[in-house]
Amino acid sequence: MVIILKENSDSAQLENLIAWLETKDISIHKSEGENSTILGLVGDTSALDIDMLQALSIVKDVKRIQEPFKNAGRQFHPNDTVIDVSGVLIGGGNTTIIAGPCSVESREQLLMIAQSVKKSGAKMLRGGAFKPRTSPYAFQGLGADGLTLLLEAKKETGLPIVTEILDASQIPLFEDVDIIQVGARNMQNFELLKELGKLRKPILLKRGIACTINELLMSAEYLLAGGNSEVILCERGIRTFETQTRYTLDLSAIPVLRSLSHLPIIVDPSHSTGNARFVHSMSVAAIAAGADGLLIEVHNDPACALCDGQQSLTPWTFDRVAKSVFAVAPYACRERI
Amino acid sequence: MVIILKENSDSAQLENLIAWLETKDISIHKSEGENSTILGLVGDTSALDIDMLQALSIVKDVKRIQEPFKNAGRQFHPNDTVIDVSGVLIGGGNTTIIAGPCSVESREQLLMIAQSVKKSGAKMLRGGAFKPRTSPYAFQGLGADGLTLLLEAKKETGLPIVTEILDASQIPLFEDVDIIQVGARNMQNFELLKELGKLRKPILLKRGIACTINELLMSAEYLLAGGNSEVILCERGIRTFETQTRYTLDLSAIPVLRSLSHLPIIVDPSHSTGNARFVHSMSVAAIAAGADGLLIEVHNDPACALCDGQQSLTPWTFDRVAKSVFAVAPYACRERI
Amino acid sequence: MVIILKENSDSAQLENLIAWLETKDISIHKSEGENSTILGLVGDTSALDIDMLQALSIVKDVKRIQEPFKNAGRQFHPNDTVIDVSGVLIGGGNTTIIAGPCSVESREQLLMIAQSVKKSGAKMLRGGAFKPRTSPYAFQGLGADGLTLLLEAKKETGLPIVTEILDASQIPLFEDVDIIQVGARNMQNFELLKELGKLRKPILLKRGIACTINELLMSAEYLLAGGNSEVILCERGIRTFETQTRYTLDLSAIPVLRSLSHLPIIVDPSHSTGNARFVHSMSVAAIAAGADGLLIEVHNDPACALCDGQQSLTPWTFDRVAKSVFAVAPYACRERI
Amino acid sequence: MVIILKENSDSAQLENLIAWLETKDISIHKSEGENSTILGLVGDTSALDIDMLQALSIVKDVKRIQEPFKNAGRQFHPNDTVIDVSGVLIGGGNTTIIAGPCSVESREQLLMIAQSVKKSGAKMLRGGAFKPRTSPYAFQGLGADGLTLLLEAKKETGLPIVTEILDASQIPLFEDVDIIQVGARNMQNFELLKELGKLRKPILLKRGIACTINELLMSAEYLLAGGNSEVILCERGIRTFETQTRYTLDLSAIPVLRSLSHLPIIVDPSHSTGNARFVHSMSVAAIAAGADGLLIEVHNDPACALCDGQQSLTPWTFDRVAKSVFAVAPYACRERI
Repeated sequence: MVIILKENSDSAQLENLIAWLETKDISIHKSEGENSTILGLVGDTSALDIDMLQALSIVKDVKRIQEPFKNAGRQFHPNDTVIDVSGVLIGGGNTTIIAGPCSVESREQLLMIAQSVKKSGAKMLRGGAFKPRTSPYAFQGLGADGLTLLLEAKKETGLPIVTEILDASQIPLFEDVDIIQVGARNMQNFELLKELGKLRKPILLKRGIACTINELLMSAEYLLAGGNSEVILCERGIRTFETQTRYTLDLSAIPVLRSLSHLPIIVDPSHSTGNARFVHSMSVAAIAAGADGLLIEVHNDPACALCDGQQSLTPWTFDRVAKSVFAVAPYACRERI
Repeated sequence: MVIILKENSDSAQLENLIAWLETKDISIHKSEGENSTILGLVGDTSALDIDMLQALSIVKDVKRIQEPFKNAGRQFHPNDTVIDVSGVLIGGGNTTIIAGPCSVESREQLLMIAQSVKKSGAKMLRGGAFKPRTSPYAFQGLGADGLTLLLEAKKETGLPIVTEILDASQIPLFEDVDIIQVGARNMQNFELLKELGKLRKPILLKRGIACTINELLMSAEYLLAGGNSEVILCERGIRTFETQTRYTLDLSAIPVLRSLSHLPIIVDPSHSTGNARFVHSMSVAAIAAGADGLLIEVHNDPACALCDGQQSLTPWTFDRVAKSVFAVAPYACRERI
Repeated sequence: MVIILKENSDSAQLENLIAWLETKDISIHKSEGENSTILGLVGDTSALDIDMLQALSIVKDVKRIQEPFKNAGRQFHPNDTVIDVSGVLIGGGNTTIIAGPCSVESREQLLMIAQSVKKSGAKMLRGGAFKPRTSPYAFQGLGADGLTLLLEAKKETGLPIVTEILDASQIPLFEDVDIIQVGARNMQNFELLKELGKLRKPILLKRGIACTINELLMSAEYLLAGGNSEVILCERGIRTFETQTRYTLDLSAIPVLRSLSHLPIIVDPSHSTGNARFVHSMSVAAIAAGADGLLIEVHNDPACALCDGQQSLTPWTFDRVAKSVFAVAPYACRERI
Repeated sequence: MVIILKENSDSAQLENLIAWLETKDISIHKSEGENSTILGLVGDTSALDIDMLQALSIVKDVKRIQEPFKNAGRQFHPNDTVIDVSGVLIGGGNTTIIAGPCSVESREQLLMIAQSVKKSGAKMLRGGAFKPRTSPYAFQGLGADGLTLLLEAKKETGLPIVTEILDASQIPLFEDVDIIQVGARNMQNFELLKELGKLRKPILLKRGIACTINELLMSAEYLLAGGNSEVILCERGIRTFETQTRYTLDLSAIPVLRSLSHLPIIVDPSHSTGNARFVHSMSVAAIAAGADGLLIEVHNDPACALCDGQQSLTPWTFDRVAKSVFAVAPYACRERI
């Protein structure tokens, strides 16, 4: 970490600052230029609050030289993490598609979709039981009953399941869930992250819609610092001014995350675009860019005209998307230049 | 609500849609133009999921005509809500300043600040006990001990207190807190909102950094729908590309919220700008724009050079800001044109 | 176009509005519901100013049903436009790479790069002669001399050239340029667009960093309405809060543009990421997503350490990127679901 | 400027870099830490391209210590600039309202509005003659005829006039215009800025909707570096995800600009909100925050129902807004803490 001091800084304050840093086991290299003085900090600076330092009256600017995410970062973990989810591998060159309905609606619906996506090559089943909804009047999911249906579908098809948790109090219900999903709105629900960090179970951590890549890695750090080493990062779109898509899918986040972190990276083309018509294109793009997998919404309910055409693909369209994805995968750019 | 259908929509699907809407007690007025058909929906459409409708294969577009926030909206509550917090009024033409340190650090610190801001005209004391921090390695607040110190400061000074909750499991600890703050990161923590909706205690709801004004009102709706009618809205900056300030304070949100909702509106100039130098200017601007109050960070620890200059004001600067605020207040624009 | 009127609209104002619309050869279908009245407009509404209508005191909302870009839109031009640039095709299933240095610096530099990228499969040469720079003190390009060097390189290598124009007064200098580039900052320089619309020469139109997809198509419409039918759209990143990349490359814009417009779509992975390390990944992703080509910065000046490592690729890295791009191209998703 | 080098940087490249910097008359202070080496640059670094340096393979990061806007910055111009526009002062504690119609439509319209706003306290008249329009099919303004009408209104009322230029070729038409406005879309039209820098006439420079405060000051620097010292900065809203207002008015830009620059600051509450109902509130807020003036749209055409209710105020509402503005002005925060 480098601290650039203001010109003519008060020397008593500067001594205070240096003394305080030394209590943190950080040694200081001072370098004085004509107009400014620079402090080089050597030691473990990951616990220093950069905002606090930046706010000091004698400080002009502060610059981190090492990234603050020790566990999520590549520096001490050069090799890609590969997560084994009941035999399905995520990371390390595998292309893993997780598919299923937005909400679990019924036993029949779920089984039909699960069997269909399995046939098309999906390796895991997703489905929402607890649904975070902007409006208190909207359908909030089947809750614990939805979880039961997911576990039944897992038994029937052999597909491990992924489903979203909304609150730490629900953890006991998720004991048999294979991957617990933390939604974008909870990416900085630190109390939830602390509890999930105590588990030994894979966590799929979605990027918040206004969160930077660094913040995503800091949230992963909460899980890893707690001892849970199985974290999967998920890019699902950020909020911008563009309105033709529900969010803007930030595919550049893939090579950036790849260069900064060893954790596997999954992309959700369904929620990000909010439109089934754009899912095919974004799925192959994400894989070409080096993503380790996809999280895709698939829905099929021929009796109900209402579901047709949503951000969900039909099983038939999903089959075509999966074929394209597997065709592109061998040519993906997974290297770190 | 108006549904604009695609040209040559499938008539069986259209009949399905109309039949389904009628099961929701919504009647339909169909109007056929040369190129398109429009359905006008009459009835309580607040529970309809606009995204779901928009996604139907026969639907071109959907347009709400009435706002979906029945309880937070002005339509059925034309008069401003005024909240009485142990004798301090928020809303209805009062200018209420809430001030205090970012984090509660010690008994001495808190009391010194509380007495000082009270003298300058603050009507309530704020202070963080549970702190949401981006990094797991940063100071997480004093927790329950911080709450105890706040309650002591309340006893000593008579100032009602405001402090942030991070998780529903902490609710019992907040029994004697006057206003519970929901931070920006938790604005869409719906499980927490549902639990807080069951209380009968004022909630200060901060706008998420990437949340629209409509979403803020929908989150308020969670609290109101639960039966808790004492909700205070708080604008605290949104995330944009500008980096000279930590966030971009969206003061236009004040007249927009004023026109849409009857709830009181508070502005936080400290977190939004992230820089004490801009707090004075944004405080008077917020009040001039019609805000009902301010949430300002004040800190004083002369023994510790580290705190100087942060986003917190010193008690001395706060005194000048408060004087300006009270001078501008009589000329504020609170009308709804 | 559909106009939704406010409840209890003044009937004299409504008659005025209808009379005015009729002077524009637009006929009106009025449909009265219980709470609101809707006007359906039939005729050529592309010249109506939606903002102006929305602002009328009797209007609640206005909704376009047809897109306002008649010439750029697919509705009347269902087939993809393919542009022939001195024998090089852009659009229609071709994968066209345009490569070259950010700025033209010298004859040697340009020729070396041109020959090298040609060998790797680039079909056109790019290079900046007039450079838009944020700072007035930064290098502004070689100007007319740069154009001369580009034309020499074209002669030598046979590669058609693409270079940026900054002002309509420069048009005469661009007579022998194959494609004139309009940079992101000039996407809404309507005076320049009007002049370029009079030419019969391909224009590469870059999306402004804060411009929506609709605005990009409206700017293309300026060129097309002027009679210049050879417009190439270019996605080059939009400005968001993320700072790990210089801009956020919006690859979802590819399928969105594909569905709305018949014009070819090019992606610039160099400027958008601002980092050579991410260009490989974003290049293959763009092609997989269905882009018709790429605009890539390549630089080589072994004598000058200063150029190493920028957002430009070295010729050697470019060769590898080009190989990946051509390998992925056959599996690209170019369909419109 | 401080350059932080990567660990184990190639020493030949480092020597190249240092040699090159020395050719620019910059001397280097090298300071070696345990893990990294830092170069402190002393001399005039304003012409160095920070992006280029940042991109060097041996460079980890670059940090400016002095702002790159020498002429627009406060460092060498500590006192506020006050601009005298035919006797009307802008800056230096004056509160100057510029008002008028969005577009000049007719002699009668313009005169009626000019006389009315003058009576309410406006000191200058604004009006659009050349209009930048997103759509090529929308009304593009009266052009030169509009300028003639503005000059007539100036003669009649004595109000100096402000109107927008779109292209350098129009400069001769603007000879008698008192302030030339550069619109948001042209803030980075550097060719236009260079030409306007040659004039000796006040320029009102609007912030681009996706431009940072630093970029605004760099564009001002183009004008100042050309020798035109009369530059007025204008905040008019930036593009964000919020849709309740057309743009998000960034009022924090006022104290930020005040601290960085000596140039006067004007705010446009009409275009930023896009809604006349929010103009009153944002006008008093801008003045309270320390703005030197306002640019407000006023329109009155009783014969034409179409104009009612737009982002323009009626003369009657403008009169009330102006009264509020002058009442708040004495309590504005113009200080720099």
